[in-house]
Amino acid sequence: MPATAISPTRAEDYPEWYQQVVRAADLAEQSPVRGCMVIKPHGYAIWEQMHGILDRMFKATGHRNAYFPLFIPVSYLEQEAKHVEGFAKECAVVTHHRLELSPDGKLIPTGKLEEPLVVRPTSETIIGAMYAKWIQSWRDLPVLINQWANVVRWEMRPRVFLRTAEFLWQEGHTAHATREEAVEETLRMIDVYATFAERDLAMPVIKGPKPSGERFPGAVDTYSIEAMMQDGKALQAGTSHFLGQNFAKGQGIKFQNSAGVEEFCWTTSWGVSTRLIGAVIMIHSDDDGLVLPPRIAPQHVVLLPIARNDEERTQVLDACRMLERDLATQTFADAPVRALVDARDIRGGDKVWQHVKQGVPLRVEIGPRDLTAGTVSLSRRDRGPKERETVPLGEFAARVPAILAEIQQAVFDRARAFRDARTVHLDSAAAVIDYFSAAETDNSRAGFAWVHVADDPAVMEMLDPLKVTVRCIPMEGNDAPGTCIVTGKPVSGRSVLARAY
Amino acid sequence: MPATAISPTRAEDYPEWYQQVVRAADLAEQSPVRGCMVIKPHGYAIWEQMHGILDRMFKATGHRNAYFPLFIPVSYLEQEAKHVEGFAKECAVVTHHRLELSPDGKLIPTGKLEEPLVVRPTSETIIGAMYAKWIQSWRDLPVLINQWANVVRWEMRPRVFLRTAEFLWQEGHTAHATREEAVEETLRMIDVYATFAERDLAMPVIKGPKPSGERFPGAVDTYSIEAMMQDGKALQAGTSHFLGQNFAKGQGIKFQNSAGVEEFCWTTSWGVSTRLIGAVIMIHSDDDGLVLPPRIAPQHVVLLPIARNDEERTQVLDACRMLERDLATQTFADAPVRALVDARDIRGGDKVWQHVKQGVPLRVEIGPRDLTAGTVSLSRRDRGPKERETVPLGEFAARVPAILAEIQQAVFDRARAFRDARTVHLDSAAAVIDYFSAAETDNSRAGFAWVHVADDPAVMEMLDPLKVTVRCIPMEGNDAPGTCIVTGKPVSGRSVLARAY
Repeated sequence: MPATAISPTRAEDYPEWYQQVVRAADLAEQSPVRGCMVIKPHGYAIWEQMHGILDRMFKATGHRNAYFPLFIPVSYLEQEAKHVEGFAKECAVVTHHRLELSPDGKLIPTGKLEEPLVVRPTSETIIGAMYAKWIQSWRDLPVLINQWANVVRWEMRPRVFLRTAEFLWQEGHTAHATREEAVEETLRMIDVYATFAERDLAMPVIKGPKPSGERFPGAVDTYSIEAMMQDGKALQAGTSHFLGQNFAKGQGIKFQNSAGVEEFCWTTSWGVSTRLIGAVIMIHSDDDGLVLPPRIAPQHVVLLPIARNDEERTQVLDACRMLERDLATQTFADAPVRALVDARDIRGGDKVWQHVKQGVPLRVEIGPRDLTAGTVSLSRRDRGPKERETVPLGEFAARVPAILAEIQQAVFDRARAFRDARTVHLDSAAAVIDYFSAAETDNSRAGFAWVHVADDPAVMEMLDPLKVTVRCIPMEGNDAPGTCIVTGKPVSGRSVLARAY
Repeated sequence: MPATAISPTRAEDYPEWYQQVVRAADLAEQSPVRGCMVIKPHGYAIWEQMHGILDRMFKATGHRNAYFPLFIPVSYLEQEAKHVEGFAKECAVVTHHRLELSPDGKLIPTGKLEEPLVVRPTSETIIGAMYAKWIQSWRDLPVLINQWANVVRWEMRPRVFLRTAEFLWQEGHTAHATREEAVEETLRMIDVYATFAERDLAMPVIKGPKPSGERFPGAVDTYSIEAMMQDGKALQAGTSHFLGQNFAKGQGIKFQNSAGVEEFCWTTSWGVSTRLIGAVIMIHSDDDGLVLPPRIAPQHVVLLPIARNDEERTQVLDACRMLERDLATQTFADAPVRALVDARDIRGGDKVWQHVKQGVPLRVEIGPRDLTAGTVSLSRRDRGPKERETVPLGEFAARVPAILAEIQQAVFDRARAFRDARTVHLDSAAAVIDYFSAAETDNSRAGFAWVHVADDPAVMEMLDPLKVTVRCIPMEGNDAPGTCIVTGKPVSGRSVLARAY
């Protein structure tokens, strides 16, 4: 048995450790297509869990799903100048609609399109064009639609889950009669994301508006949730944008109000992506591989029969199947407990390590001695790989929901304790420069700095050489006004500064 | 109240009736992007029902989901010659990865790719390339993976749901150690589709292999399920392909067998798409709009409060909410009954007609007189829009599952009776020519002809001018051998001939 299953360890080389966890857990890999990943079954199963929970939350808040075209005419992007600057730079452009076989067996693009099409990097423009058709009267509002889709943003330095040319996401797009309603929706959805992150992903997040330089191109306000990874860097885990009337004006999304007067709609958009899988890996995993919060684990429990001969095998397998059935009647997070019997005929040690590396929250070994003693041997993924607990066979199934809830809480608490230990409050430009410079040479000192800064270019200028950005202005626990450490301007609260993914 | 909600009727102009049903039910519409549709919330909700049922069936048969890249390098298509002929002709080709703003505000494609990328028309080639990496030993087999994705096939004459440039589908891709296992998988999946079509979509289908000229490009055998639409035309509702070792050889998908000898894998692929929504519309709907089989209806029951003043409104709305709660405790098709209270403040007649046109299986009106009498007034979508049934309020919720099951059966029976009435057995070339020529002038005579034909080019030549194809060779109810009406060759059973979508 190796000292740790993953080499290098987090402390030795965090970026390489991340790649090795992805590989060891068999989550995804780079495809032969530049920048595009293949999400393998275990990785996709995690996305299915996330999708299922979020989809129920979106529907519970009144949204319906729809599907809009993959392609966007280039002219649509030209309409929204700010948006173009942000998105039109690196995207996949379709210019032809046919291939013809040349005499030497090569396929040559033919059938040139009159107008090139962009593979959607995000769908504000195409969805906005439809809303302009659909919305006529105040009676048609609000429009509350979400889309689950793939999007493409050409990436020069791809990194699996975190930054890939193609990724999966959901994008909500809503239109409202009033500014107030649209702002309320924007805040409602960042709250949905924060609840999902903390409750389901066990990922403590800081929620708040971004400074102007970090907003979504074309947005009036962008709210984000920011989580701290185990290298002290921030990861933006979800965003919700109040678009004001900017997109509505660019695209002619208008309605007649109840007084018969024509007005522009107020719109929002909000999204999370498969990047969340990368965040979950980076925030919870350890030097033995993936650690999954039980609420999004495709399997909660793996049952491992241990036997030396066929007679024993039949006995322990029967016991495992019985437990599997018992577990299916137990409920965790409003769904049946998901258990799997791994009866594959491979070395027991390899099998155990595979489930450790894949992050199954609870491993249960059952051998002939356990059956004689009437016990099972439990191992929790949030504890050391050799720690075991013995539980009476008859009590086991009923105790599983509580154990899963404990693990869920334990991984959350650990992530929060880590973040708290890596968070500082700084009150001068010199202190900020010192802090992030020291972190550059000693990664164990990297983290979040809560600092009074104004939304001002001078702040960006100071932070830029440090490769630090203002992540957001926390909406909670942030009631101490102060003066900007760069401009001296009064500000209502601190901002969170960090290096970020 | 109009004579029928949809104009023209099916009899007057079937293709236009179809477009009008799609519009009246608010399912989808053409987007500004040529050939691409927008699937609106009601249409997408039907797809979600189909997705959910199929996904459970795939998982119950041992499959897992994964996700592969949207883009396929052109060189991958060049490897598989037959496949290229079938697919490489009309597809979206990405040639650039950047847009730059010209001085006159136009976006110009730049960053030319070294190798053009095709937007997947189907994923055999890219998935095969991954399987070639993943599979080494017989221990790695079988690989049973499904993907839910969007695909693009450039269409010159798009038709919403039936033939669109972009559509949503699932594609299963499996690799096996033996021919027998791969054939078994191919048949298992066409059975899954047939069960889904008949049980859930209430769509009687004919299942069987296709003649060589109608196979998937590169397949050894293609099995399809074929359904009859209300204009007597066939619609291919799902296919399952036995690919033999063709793709494995083209892509190097090899494994070491247990004797240590290297062999090529045997592969399959199978898929259904959003085309199924078009099939459901065309097979069940009537001149009042969409008719949905309850098992895939996003809402089973709509509760319509009827009131003339605020006091009445409070009373009937309370009663509706109570029924909604009662219905949620009832089970239909292994899930809670899906009920919706429509309390919108619009004209009652408009509201009723909207739900008729949208195909809600069961409408329930509740007014003050019903409350006094202790009854509710039911209308079933499979019956005339004015037919009503009165049911005691206290019994209603408990009776709904049985009523939904009755509706499910009734729409299936109606579709099967229609198909049976439009099916003939023909025994000469002259009879076939007569039958399909007559159908051309009188659509009410169009249908399926069961005919003895060989898998021979001479048969195609005869059928081509009639715009008729061999749909499949039915695997059930087809045990009478005979001789081909064109070539005189002996054949083991009849084939189904029809015009098709």
